[in-house]
Amino acid sequence: MSSTPRLRSLNIDNINPHVKEAKYAVRGELAIKSEELRAQLKKGDPPTPPEKPLPFDTVISANIGNPQQLDQKPITFFRQVLALLEYPALLQNEDVLKSSLGYNQDAVDRARWLLKEVQSVGAYSQSAGAPGIRQSVANFIERRDGFPSHKDHIYLSAGASSGVNTLLHIICSKPETGVLVPIPQYPLYTATLTVLNARCVPYYLDESQAWGTELATIVEAYDKADSEGTDVRAIVIINPGNPTGASLSEKDVEGMIKFAAEKKLVIMADEVYQTNVFVGEFHSFKGVLRKLQQKEPGKYDNVELASLNSVSKGMVGECGHRAGYFELVGFDPEVQAQIYKFISIMLCPPVIGQCLLEMVVNPPKPGDPSFELYDQEYNAVKNGLKERATALYEAFKQMEGVEVGEPQGSMYLFPTITVPPKAVEAAKEAERSPDEFYCLRLLDETGICVVPGSGFGQKPGTLHLRTTFLAPGTDWVGRWTKFHEKFMDKYR
Amino acid sequence: MSSTPRLRSLNIDNINPHVKEAKYAVRGELAIKSEELRAQLKKGDPPTPPEKPLPFDTVISANIGNPQQLDQKPITFFRQVLALLEYPALLQNEDVLKSSLGYNQDAVDRARWLLKEVQSVGAYSQSAGAPGIRQSVANFIERRDGFPSHKDHIYLSAGASSGVNTLLHIICSKPETGVLVPIPQYPLYTATLTVLNARCVPYYLDESQAWGTELATIVEAYDKADSEGTDVRAIVIINPGNPTGASLSEKDVEGMIKFAAEKKLVIMADEVYQTNVFVGEFHSFKGVLRKLQQKEPGKYDNVELASLNSVSKGMVGECGHRAGYFELVGFDPEVQAQIYKFISIMLCPPVIGQCLLEMVVNPPKPGDPSFELYDQEYNAVKNGLKERATALYEAFKQMEGVEVGEPQGSMYLFPTITVPPKAVEAAKEAERSPDEFYCLRLLDETGICVVPGSGFGQKPGTLHLRTTFLAPGTDWVGRWTKFHEKFMDKYR
Repeated sequence: MSSTPRLRSLNIDNINPHVKEAKYAVRGELAIKSEELRAQLKKGDPPTPPEKPLPFDTVISANIGNPQQLDQKPITFFRQVLALLEYPALLQNEDVLKSSLGYNQDAVDRARWLLKEVQSVGAYSQSAGAPGIRQSVANFIERRDGFPSHKDHIYLSAGASSGVNTLLHIICSKPETGVLVPIPQYPLYTATLTVLNARCVPYYLDESQAWGTELATIVEAYDKADSEGTDVRAIVIINPGNPTGASLSEKDVEGMIKFAAEKKLVIMADEVYQTNVFVGEFHSFKGVLRKLQQKEPGKYDNVELASLNSVSKGMVGECGHRAGYFELVGFDPEVQAQIYKFISIMLCPPVIGQCLLEMVVNPPKPGDPSFELYDQEYNAVKNGLKERATALYEAFKQMEGVEVGEPQGSMYLFPTITVPPKAVEAAKEAERSPDEFYCLRLLDETGICVVPGSGFGQKPGTLHLRTTFLAPGTDWVGRWTKFHEKFMDKYR
Repeated sequence: MSSTPRLRSLNIDNINPHVKEAKYAVRGELAIKSEELRAQLKKGDPPTPPEKPLPFDTVISANIGNPQQLDQKPITFFRQVLALLEYPALLQNEDVLKSSLGYNQDAVDRARWLLKEVQSVGAYSQSAGAPGIRQSVANFIERRDGFPSHKDHIYLSAGASSGVNTLLHIICSKPETGVLVPIPQYPLYTATLTVLNARCVPYYLDESQAWGTELATIVEAYDKADSEGTDVRAIVIINPGNPTGASLSEKDVEGMIKFAAEKKLVIMADEVYQTNVFVGEFHSFKGVLRKLQQKEPGKYDNVELASLNSVSKGMVGECGHRAGYFELVGFDPEVQAQIYKFISIMLCPPVIGQCLLEMVVNPPKPGDPSFELYDQEYNAVKNGLKERATALYEAFKQMEGVEVGEPQGSMYLFPTITVPPKAVEAAKEAERSPDEFYCLRLLDETGICVVPGSGFGQKPGTLHLRTTFLAPGTDWVGRWTKFHEKFMDKYR
């Protein structure tokens, strides 16, 4: 054994190259820097000269849809029940719960039922989730679409992200495997495809048509990839869109299903924003598929659809609980068995999150003692989101060089920004793309953290940024407006 | 578009071949069958003739270390605090909590502190976990080992499984990458290596030496792999062992570190059973490494160690909460940045699980109001585990053809079984390995689900099975003993 210090085994040049190539800007450099700024503000240390004090007193994390990090309150009914599941001994004091702690009978009953289903939230469940909870999800889908759903085709997951990871693991069988992904997109898709050493086949959404999805564009992207030797196996649709908020019309959904059927593509429908819709209406892929199958019996029987949902979004915003599900339609049973085995390696999704999901898909109904408060809280979040979106939209309309369509849904706005040529030069000098440069300056000067459009993909030559509209109040929008004026003046 | 039903896109022959190859017997065919039997018993339907009623009235899941699925109760203090985190409005009624619901001041205080750290358990935390909780983990490691630990080297994870998945994703850079894995092992390692298309380099533990780890065997395995063109980059050590329960002596740990240092191998120390020790003592790799570094300054500075821990094991058994952590020692900062990015794609581990982990590593101390009950509950679990292990051990000693060493730790026994030649023939006819055949018969006739030794790896020509010793009572052991006699008589 040598006595000189050995070199390390792992360095940046010999680790998994696919992990190294993956990009995930939503929690990239800007987000890391924003956390450092937050820690600096929290510590309250006076700056070490020649450092200047920070020119803001709060960090606004608008980089990620994380409602409860800002001021969104959880829904009371859900959390009342979760407390009982964590500490079931409370159920021995039903009278105290009801007389002194604001519990209604339906919360107590729900907790008892869920405990019966999972035994303890500290026990592993079945790999795909507790059967009773999967049944509840199937019931929800049945009510939503008007078509049957079966618990054995429901897989609970640790958020939709984990579901996407599972599905892409199954689909990506070789380096030539391709998956159609909308651009702009949520970077989970490109990052996971890169880690799996498969190909992203981008199709651009049409900004001039409120970020609409043009079938012709998809066909073109498919044909190009196909002619280049890519084995296109699946298409991702984010509906309503992230980061665009756009909802597909029923006709558009039909068109995509027909295209997928023709090309034998698995449809991955990311439907996590299904209740976050301001403009238009949500049409589930499952529902539209079943209607097509009714209209033309036999024709679409073997369409393979995976539809994903999450408790992180909607009016619930329970991101930290890491819960979601996907439903498989038309999958080969042998393939389903492989999916089951794959998820078993990680044992099961968090059980308390499974219970939360059960309540999200099966909330108090009119007439239930907890309904009124639930309904109030739900609508307050819904209206609040729309108000915040509109306020931010109005502010963007006033900003020079910023263009953005009316808010349509999801939790984001994705404006185009046009910056003066001098700013492009300054960005180049700083070895940044102009959108990165803008977002970095915004963070440094206002504490507002957003994500450059390059993190989601954008047409070459265009610049965007994604911001959530979750932050409360107007102060932060004011900060941004002032920053923007200064920025434009400086580089004009 | 054709009007005949199209073939599906995905079938067993064109999905990811590495997923298809992966094996994970802990939740394989036997476990799936046991769940079906459980559902059948629950439904209580009379059997459809010519079916016979099941010859047992409960299913005993001894295939997986899942204490709270059996009768282990959670620790009161932990769950009291978790309830407050889920429903913080309860904190507005501190007097009711204390006068009527059995809460002590320290539970209330802990909940307030954790809420300050995470804001809401419904919000995403930082990708590696909330900073305050990582600091608590670092403090725990410091107290355990007597050497400093830093929160920036702690990564919280959704159970240890997710941590192993992350680390192997980074290490496995090409098909020739090899990782030394003990045999028998927990199949998470082989399954993940297979999915990543990398090589498992097996080293056998020595059953005749109470499943001891022989350095010479490891060197031999390394040299063989190396000579065959495998680029061995890491060594997995499960200490205390799963499924064997064996604890490494300090000298053994030293030997492994020196070997890893010489060969430049990353050490992956799976230390999730660190408190489940009946025989011998637990020596952490981090502690032993730091002592070596003190003794011979400069010599081991660049050793790379990842040490994993979990709330699923120990006396806590909170599997359903999916929480754990790993500490990195000596890793290159650029590699750490890649790990951070990789885990960011999945956003963060469950936040309520992070809070539970905080309490597991920082439980009530002597003098705290909740200490007495905590201590009582902790020791009751500890003693109960040892009693159950001993009872099962005694039963095995009485069974013909079963050999097993004294229980040493973890949650498992891993006996050798020798079955008559006629049973081997019957297994062959059923297209099963003899250990699978035995375990299937055991499940069918008694409802007891265990895992064949082949699921963990065993020396060619030997047969084993892994069973947890978590199930309460002696009834199930009696069922097993009777089954075993009948089985041996039938095939004698």
